[in-house]
Amino acid sequence: MQDHHVNVGILGLGTVGTGVARILLTQQDLLRTRSALTFTLHTIVELNWDKERDLDLSGVECITDAQKMLENPEIDIIVETIGGYEPAFTFIATALRNRKHVVTANKALIATRGRELFQIAKENGVDLLFEASVGGGIPIIKGLREGLVANQIERVYGILNGTSNYILTRMHQEELEFGQALAEAQAKGFAEADPTLDVSGGDAAHKLTILASIAASGFVNYQDLYIEGIQNITKLDINFAKSFGYTIKLLAVMRRMENGLDLRVHPTLVPNNHLLAAVNNELNAVFVKGDFVGNTMFYGPGAGERPTASSIVSDIVDLSRDLLLKEGEQFSCRTLNPEQGIPVVPVEQIRNRFYLRFFTLDAPGILSKISGVLAQNGISISSMVQLETHGKDNYVPIVLLTHEASEQAMKQALDAIGKFDFIQENYLRIRLF
Amino acid sequence: MQDHHVNVGILGLGTVGTGVARILLTQQDLLRTRSALTFTLHTIVELNWDKERDLDLSGVECITDAQKMLENPEIDIIVETIGGYEPAFTFIATALRNRKHVVTANKALIATRGRELFQIAKENGVDLLFEASVGGGIPIIKGLREGLVANQIERVYGILNGTSNYILTRMHQEELEFGQALAEAQAKGFAEADPTLDVSGGDAAHKLTILASIAASGFVNYQDLYIEGIQNITKLDINFAKSFGYTIKLLAVMRRMENGLDLRVHPTLVPNNHLLAAVNNELNAVFVKGDFVGNTMFYGPGAGERPTASSIVSDIVDLSRDLLLKEGEQFSCRTLNPEQGIPVVPVEQIRNRFYLRFFTLDAPGILSKISGVLAQNGISISSMVQLETHGKDNYVPIVLLTHEASEQAMKQALDAIGKFDFIQENYLRIRLF
Ligand SMILES: NC(=O)c1ccc[n+]([C@@H]2O[C@H](COP(=O)([O-])OP(=O)(O)OC[C@H]3O[C@@H](n4cnc5c(N)ncnc54)[C@H](OP(=O)(O)O)[C@@H]3O)[C@@H](O)[C@H]2O)c1
Ligand SMILES: NC(=O)c1ccc[n+]([C@@H]2O[C@H](COP(=O)([O-])OP(=O)(O)OC[C@H]3O[C@@H](n4cnc5c(N)ncnc54)[C@H](OP(=O)(O)O)[C@@H]3O)[C@@H](O)[C@H]2O)c1
Repeated sequence: MQDHHVNVGILGLGTVGTGVARILLTQQDLLRTRSALTFTLHTIVELNWDKERDLDLSGVECITDAQKMLENPEIDIIVETIGGYEPAFTFIATALRNRKHVVTANKALIATRGRELFQIAKENGVDLLFEASVGGGIPIIKGLREGLVANQIERVYGILNGTSNYILTRMHQEELEFGQALAEAQAKGFAEADPTLDVSGGDAAHKLTILASIAASGFVNYQDLYIEGIQNITKLDINFAKSFGYTIKLLAVMRRMENGLDLRVHPTLVPNNHLLAAVNNELNAVFVKGDFVGNTMFYGPGAGERPTASSIVSDIVDLSRDLLLKEGEQFSCRTLNPEQGIPVVPVEQIRNRFYLRFFTLDAPGILSKISGVLAQNGISISSMVQLETHGKDNYVPIVLLTHEASEQAMKQALDAIGKFDFIQENYLRIRLF
Repeated sequence: MQDHHVNVGILGLGTVGTGVARILLTQQDLLRTRSALTFTLHTIVELNWDKERDLDLSGVECITDAQKMLENPEIDIIVETIGGYEPAFTFIATALRNRKHVVTANKALIATRGRELFQIAKENGVDLLFEASVGGGIPIIKGLREGLVANQIERVYGILNGTSNYILTRMHQEELEFGQALAEAQAKGFAEADPTLDVSGGDAAHKLTILASIAASGFVNYQDLYIEGIQNITKLDINFAKSFGYTIKLLAVMRRMENGLDLRVHPTLVPNNHLLAAVNNELNAVFVKGDFVGNTMFYGPGAGERPTASSIVSDIVDLSRDLLLKEGEQFSCRTLNPEQGIPVVPVEQIRNRFYLRFFTLDAPGILSKISGVLAQNGISISSMVQLETHGKDNYVPIVLLTHEASEQAMKQALDAIGKFDFIQENYLRIRLF
């Protein structure tokens, strides 16, 4: 057992890159104790060196030319923390072709172009790891692909986006409207200036694509996912959910079915006695159900400089084992096969229970018309609430919970109900857990 | 990247061994897809081949002579699922000396003699893995030592014994006394015929010893832990805890302090809004706090044939990477150093909040005497309940919650209070979270 040196280069010294640099600079002894390897932060590529970063970078090569680092034969592992599609994709591909191992936190890139990148990694006998791309500091990818390697994965479901969970938590706790909670999240740094990707479900869907690909040992097409965000949820819906004993969460769900994966991201009514209902603020949590292990859950901070960097460095240490392998061997990449596509079951074929909320004119016979359309589509109602007050502009809210019904039937029913002139356009359908 | 064959041998075909055999026999394709390795169940050593096991063992060498398997050069990895100290220790040591990698679920052995075994593994250039020894199917050891490798571990705390958690859950939900809940747990197979190790806290302490050793990158002495079981908790205490907004759980706790680790296993009042209060029945959950990641939590089934086997097979797959290493290299063992002892802070130096329950005669002046002794020892009371009824044999319960105080001061106070003749002997002290 020899002592090895591992030279690391970082692309992009923003939030996450700074965290990685901080760990490599301050935890070197700890890492050496735990791995018998010495990790050196060799080079950082960053365009803007004027920002204040509270890091002592003496001894580190600080440059702006990515190509120089990507071609440096002294560097073993490249960390990509620029984000976005380009130049991140080209930089990662170049690094892999130069036979450097790569670590990235870039969920958007892995979810949409991961397949190409893993193909390049495979061809060049190097590895590409991405623990930080899902669940920030939670070692969920490692748990899923190594810890539960012996299991057929039946289900993966959970809260994968901290921003939208923070917003929903504040809506629940402080009775805020979506817009107010979003503004608060932005003020506190839990939401970006442009929060679209977070609140629309897109970010959670990127992460679900990655988890599902690992679970199914292949690649899922991001475009095949059904995605709905939290933008249309109102204070009123939160209160109705509460009165039924539920908490509204943005859930990402994977279920293994006979003809493929059921893959969805949407707001969901979670029963209050489920652990996910108690996962609050910016925290993330993922349940994984395997055929041998049963239900497991992983919980923790889904973002932030320090947690995300914790995951990246865990990948760096893992990759360093590749340096101890016999010539021609690879370990990590064995577990992802770029040749294997995974079919997704169209959402219309899925069955769910639903929460429906309409604003209707306060006139007789309306409820029977709505329930008539539902009945025609084979959908039966399990509870109903019609409030006398609470209305705006003469409209009153009606809320229904249904028994299980197909998404297809629900879509048809809503199309028909939406055409009634006594119904406002802004009706809402939320799935039940 | 070549295709490799890995031959596995199992020692002891009991509950867990049967699960391991089942996975190796039924999930071979899945494991090959995910690891590019072919795992073969080569040999099983078991004394009693008459038991009905619902396994098709054709093609597997089924023998009673352990020595024969331990010396067979064809076998790469040995799984020890006999349990207990001997012959398990000798078998594992022999396997390691014969340069076979070993996987075990034997927490009692790893906690008390792990240091010797890791020394032998190191000397012989092989690895010893033990994921299943803590948290059954939960990949907590992997999460802690690989996933959080970049963190100084500040705290580890959680529910590590399924049997006692099941008993406490039933006491909470059904208002049972300890004895009734234990009998039910035994009837349902959640408790052994001899439940001592589980309800006394010993099993949780074995597991905490293992987690703390990993967290501190050295070896903790099992004898140094402070351990208290759940045997003295009554229905009355559960109800008092409830009335204060707490749930009683058997917690295992590690805290990093300046002069060593604070390591304890004891019943604890957990606030109802903490996630651990919602971990019920036989389930386990562990929080890990690292200096970079913050708080993470791992949750799942802490025992059982299938979850435990899931963890063992994950270790088998991990060990197989050692077969791809260059001559003289080792990976897993790098992370545990048998030469490094870890000091434990004596419990007397720890500060806690306490729940105290006494049965006293119903006479005037008693409360002032008790609170007087507490005050003399610098312990101040935060709440107090004295019930008029509820007494047996003329004794009435008095319950106090204290502010933080040293364990030393509390011990002195209880010694003095215990000598009052108006106090029954069976008083109880429980720590607050
Ligand atoms: N933030 C989190 O909590 C978190 C959590 C999980 C995953 N992630 C992922 O981590 C990645 C990075 O996120 P972040 O929050 O750290 O972003 P960030 O703060 O915007 O950092 C990106 C950094 O890259 C620099 N950069 C841009 N183009 C570059 C180029 N061509 N060459 C070198 N440097 C360049 C930027 O410099 P300028 O200042 O000049 O633009 C900036 O410093 C993203 O993929 C994100 O999805 C983030
Ligand atoms: N059960 C769980 O859920 C669980 C969870 C985590 C960890 N563990 C750990 O896993 C280990 C095994 O537990 P278990 O529940 O599977 O125990 P078990 O059901 O009692 O199985 C032990 C098996 O080993 C056999 N055996 C005893 N001595 C032997 C010898 N000299 N050579 C070969 N076979 C021998 C026994 O055979 P006989 O029938 O002849 O006695 C029995 O079949 C223990 O260390 C335990 O702490 C168990």
